[in-house]
Amino acid sequence: MKKIYGIIILIFLTLCLYAEDGHKLWLRNSSTKPVNVVCAKNSPTLTIAKQELQNGWRGEMGTSVNLVIKADKAIRGDGFRISKNTIQANTENGILYGVYELLRRQQTGEDIQEEICNPSYDRRILNHWDNLDGSIERGYAGLSIFWRKGDAFTVTETDKTLWLEYARANASIGINGSVLNNVNASHLMLTSDYLQRVKAIAEVLRPYRIKTYLSVIFSSPAQIGGLKTSDPLNPEVAQWWKDKAKEIYNLIPDFGGFLVKANSEGQPGPQDFGRTHADGANMLADALNPFGGIVMWRAFVYSASDEDRAKQAYLEFMPFDGQFRDNVIIQVKNGPIDFQPREPFSPLFGAMKKTTVMPELQITQEYLGHSVHLAFLAPMWEEFLQSDTYQEGAGSTVARCTDGSIFPQSRIFGTAIAGVANIGLDANWCGHHFGQSNWYAFGRLAWNSSMKSEQIADEWIKLTFGKTTDNKDDSAIDWNLNFLSPVKQMMLESREAIVDFMMPLGLHHIFSANGHYGPGPWWAPKGMRKDWTPPYYHQADSLGIGFDRTSTGSNNLSQYQEPLRSVYSNPATCPEAYLLWFHHLPWDYKMKSGRSLWDELCYHYDGGVQQVRRFQQVWDQAERFVDRERFVDVQRRLRDQSLNALEWKDACLLHFQKFSRKPIPYNLERPMYNLDYLIEKDTKRVGDYQH
Amino acid sequence: MKKIYGIIILIFLTLCLYAEDGHKLWLRNSSTKPVNVVCAKNSPTLTIAKQELQNGWRGEMGTSVNLVIKADKAIRGDGFRISKNTIQANTENGILYGVYELLRRQQTGEDIQEEICNPSYDRRILNHWDNLDGSIERGYAGLSIFWRKGDAFTVTETDKTLWLEYARANASIGINGSVLNNVNASHLMLTSDYLQRVKAIAEVLRPYRIKTYLSVIFSSPAQIGGLKTSDPLNPEVAQWWKDKAKEIYNLIPDFGGFLVKANSEGQPGPQDFGRTHADGANMLADALNPFGGIVMWRAFVYSASDEDRAKQAYLEFMPFDGQFRDNVIIQVKNGPIDFQPREPFSPLFGAMKKTTVMPELQITQEYLGHSVHLAFLAPMWEEFLQSDTYQEGAGSTVARCTDGSIFPQSRIFGTAIAGVANIGLDANWCGHHFGQSNWYAFGRLAWNSSMKSEQIADEWIKLTFGKTTDNKDDSAIDWNLNFLSPVKQMMLESREAIVDFMMPLGLHHIFSANGHYGPGPWWAPKGMRKDWTPPYYHQADSLGIGFDRTSTGSNNLSQYQEPLRSVYSNPATCPEAYLLWFHHLPWDYKMKSGRSLWDELCYHYDGGVQQVRRFQQVWDQAERFVDRERFVDVQRRLRDQSLNALEWKDACLLHFQKFSRKPIPYNLERPMYNLDYLIEKDTKRVGDYQH
Repeated sequence: MKKIYGIIILIFLTLCLYAEDGHKLWLRNSSTKPVNVVCAKNSPTLTIAKQELQNGWRGEMGTSVNLVIKADKAIRGDGFRISKNTIQANTENGILYGVYELLRRQQTGEDIQEEICNPSYDRRILNHWDNLDGSIERGYAGLSIFWRKGDAFTVTETDKTLWLEYARANASIGINGSVLNNVNASHLMLTSDYLQRVKAIAEVLRPYRIKTYLSVIFSSPAQIGGLKTSDPLNPEVAQWWKDKAKEIYNLIPDFGGFLVKANSEGQPGPQDFGRTHADGANMLADALNPFGGIVMWRAFVYSASDEDRAKQAYLEFMPFDGQFRDNVIIQVKNGPIDFQPREPFSPLFGAMKKTTVMPELQITQEYLGHSVHLAFLAPMWEEFLQSDTYQEGAGSTVARCTDGSIFPQSRIFGTAIAGVANIGLDANWCGHHFGQSNWYAFGRLAWNSSMKSEQIADEWIKLTFGKTTDNKDDSAIDWNLNFLSPVKQMMLESREAIVDFMMPLGLHHIFSANGHYGPGPWWAPKGMRKDWTPPYYHQADSLGIGFDRTSTGSNNLSQYQEPLRSVYSNPATCPEAYLLWFHHLPWDYKMKSGRSLWDELCYHYDGGVQQVRRFQQVWDQAERFVDRERFVDVQRRLRDQSLNALEWKDACLLHFQKFSRKPIPYNLERPMYNLDYLIEKDTKRVGDYQH
Repeated sequence: MKKIYGIIILIFLTLCLYAEDGHKLWLRNSSTKPVNVVCAKNSPTLTIAKQELQNGWRGEMGTSVNLVIKADKAIRGDGFRISKNTIQANTENGILYGVYELLRRQQTGEDIQEEICNPSYDRRILNHWDNLDGSIERGYAGLSIFWRKGDAFTVTETDKTLWLEYARANASIGINGSVLNNVNASHLMLTSDYLQRVKAIAEVLRPYRIKTYLSVIFSSPAQIGGLKTSDPLNPEVAQWWKDKAKEIYNLIPDFGGFLVKANSEGQPGPQDFGRTHADGANMLADALNPFGGIVMWRAFVYSASDEDRAKQAYLEFMPFDGQFRDNVIIQVKNGPIDFQPREPFSPLFGAMKKTTVMPELQITQEYLGHSVHLAFLAPMWEEFLQSDTYQEGAGSTVARCTDGSIFPQSRIFGTAIAGVANIGLDANWCGHHFGQSNWYAFGRLAWNSSMKSEQIADEWIKLTFGKTTDNKDDSAIDWNLNFLSPVKQMMLESREAIVDFMMPLGLHHIFSANGHYGPGPWWAPKGMRKDWTPPYYHQADSLGIGFDRTSTGSNNLSQYQEPLRSVYSNPATCPEAYLLWFHHLPWDYKMKSGRSLWDELCYHYDGGVQQVRRFQQVWDQAERFVDRERFVDVQRRLRDQSLNALEWKDACLLHFQKFSRKPIPYNLERPMYNLDYLIEKDTKRVGDYQH
């Protein structure tokens, strides 16, 4: 009898070991064929490169692969030259990235011709909004992988294993920097114990060529330095930062620099002392400069002033263009408000011509359904990066304005792009299995900003859900036709579906206050800052809906370059996707479809709901191609998303209907929720997702 | 300033007075033309008849209407002869019913030819499951109109007004009896204070020719009579009941009789003393006989025995057929289980050939969505009444087996039919405005059991939502085409939609235990009586689903007459609507549609959900024809129903899928709820409806 129990336990343990929890991410290739790797040099990074090739080689049997470090002007920064059996680069970094590229192409079946691959951005950075107590602001995948409550400073083997897996995953997609803590930074970050832990993390990340950065709070000198002020023009303050920089670089010689959120949403900053953003950023930059460090200074600032929030960052930063040190980069969120499902690009892009500007994207789905919704964000980022600012004539895309092509000053300390990470202690790292695709996509776009979403999705699906066999047999055709193709299509449509059921036609920030998950177009408690309430953004009234940002309104459009200003100012030429972002229009305004604005709004909301239901159909039909664990987990979340979409649609249409006083077109599915129920639910909502 | 407030208050009060709360039911005709009423006799009832004509006349101006009481053998019981200007009857009752018929025909625009209208059943009775504390068992429209907590015995003017309105509404549709209290009766019912209140109620009801009846608890002699036993063969017990009957008839000379739930679901009864149902019923019948009273003895009995619950009433009552007194009527629920959305008729109908049997229908929607769902029940009752029992050859419908056509013994004390009322203190009486249609339909079918549901719905809509004008103008055509027709269609389909999304193909009693509202196919707590849990009824397992009631199973079918027994025993000939009621069939059993049983089940559940969504579309499009109050109230409940339908579909399909292990056909909408969420919600459910 005891024997049987033993066997049962053994079987159980085996199952557990092989349960597919998604922890392996897109790194699933296992060696099928032997390979001979030739490399003249030796180093921890090159050892990794060699091992990866040996563990994952799927090219011709017995190939001899050469890893060659050799100066070549055609290769820039971390770039490399790749062919079937040679990777050449200027640096060890380039060799490592070339190896991952070669393996990826082998696994996805992509063609490998001799080719040079240079990165779009020099610094490809994850921002972790991780707090030192282990919690993560806007994190939906468990606690921090870096910090924790209780026994905060012991570095365990588990910690190191996780950091190593994290580093490898990042390196495999070209990410080369990590800001380890929240932009709403704790003053403890720069104290000795925490810096020791940063040192430990940096040591694990270093062989994978990932630099560590830290968010710092501007009031650190007063809070932990024993000074009476943190005034950036005070010499003692400047000296304190210089000493602190020295201390850090002693611990972490390849330390990247600071990320600063100053005078923003209550954070301290130079303005507290009558100084400017330039004063503050430059003082820090001077402290870091001797060590090659940079300051990423965030432009996410707005106050409860009368000015349209969308205008404020531009108004506050443009006067200082040209006054920042070379090693200051202004980090600008993609849109002028705050990571909404859809925004036009921030007018700062291309406008700041004498300052290095870096885009900040949000990988974690703060406003896109947390880790409940399936949202592939590459299309959103592609849309943003390819937006033409016209600042230096047609073709001045956001990508070209930030990657050094147009404004070369940013090449001095390197161009940069940041993504707010969606990573936590969840077994699958990202909460939603498809959330991994956004981590992946950020890395890929940071490396190559002109990549198409379709290509990124294709790669990710193949790497994440692909079979280990690469036979071109019937089962592969079946897989391509009935899994890859529909799932890719679903991913590509997923962000637009969310826009449709949440806030189509340029609507924005109409979330419930509690967690930015559910709908809250009505939410405006007495005494609340107007710019923190949805009615401020949607401006619905008996006449119409939308935020007038033309010259008759806030004139936010004056911050954009021609011809955009004119094109967007005219509702007839403004893209309908941005219509209510820039215009307040009557309910019966005639849309391009011939429908009234109200009807069109209804069609979008309904369309979004129907779209999610189609996603459910796609995924359910994919069941036979996916392991049970991941299938069920994604299925559950899609159900939750489907219900949430219904809530969004009903909440928004029933709320706006109070103003439009028009019926929802009768051929559309009717609301299932009563408005007062949703409002009451909203007041009780504290992250009440089903799963 | 004060003046303005005064005016505002006045306007508000006026609006309140005219707010359409549905209290007027189907009685909305207002006199448009003068009429002269001629009647030789005078009485309270005849006065009512005259007033109704004068207040509601819509025939030719200045017509002289004769009300004639004259013996006529063609007219039976409460029947009457009607023409455009004469109503002739044997009794005052007949005159009253004739008047209501004439007015109804005028208002609905029905043709009026000379015609005799005789009632199908002599006793047309509402059963109120009202408790003496004012609560109502399975009541979803507020508290009792008869009883209340606190100041329980004062008869107020408000009480009397409400009882009078109640009496008038009943009389207008031919109802002539009311059992004033719950079948789970309190022993206090027969105490003096409560009987005084019954007397007061009876006095208000009497002019409208409605008899009062009472539910009694069999243990009354011991509980309130000071006796040591309630053994029906004990002479003191018998005497106690005789005395009690005399006391009641002294107070209420037209008292109808007793309704008894004995040895059923824990209620006391003759079996407690080793006596039979016949012993108990006959003893009570003997007490009432001198006064012309009757005993309605319920056959709703079942125990936790091994016998199929559907068989037990038959097994227990058939042996006593012929042993009951003439003034005992066995009251049998329409189906053999318990008021499910669909059941085959109880095998007792037609089988008890020497006993008067009366059907018990349930108007209150215990199992049909309470007062949340829109469910017009006439089609369910029509299906039941027209079911052929074959007990005396083809054509032995349940209606003919109970209305005296086939078994004439029931003519002695009158045939009868009962409906469990859906009436409470809600302004609109029934909770759901469309719930009124079921009160109406019960009355109409009790009067004429061969009425078609379509005709009943047509009448009810016209009377309840019709315009006061009877012009055949454009607006009337519009109303007929765009309101009457689609709303009637919705009503006619409404019950089948519920069957589809709750328990199609013969499934039954798979409710959540908490309130019989939500789904609970999984519900089976440890130690719970098996016949009180859904798995007892659906019998789902890895092989299939359904309750085998053929000879290989419980053989409940042996209780049915041929050819039903054979037809129902063969799955190929058994109506699919009853398939899983009588059969346990494999998941891949091939249905008439060509689909597998599992797929067919999925299609039914999905179809029910889609149907409710179509009802929402119908109702939303009806907005312009309905007052705001009733429109919004029905709209809200349809939304709730729509969500509830979704819960039912998802709960049942996801639960049954655990056994079938088959996918829901991929072209169908996918589940939106996760099963564990629904199960958890179920455990917390205590009437959590939205509205």
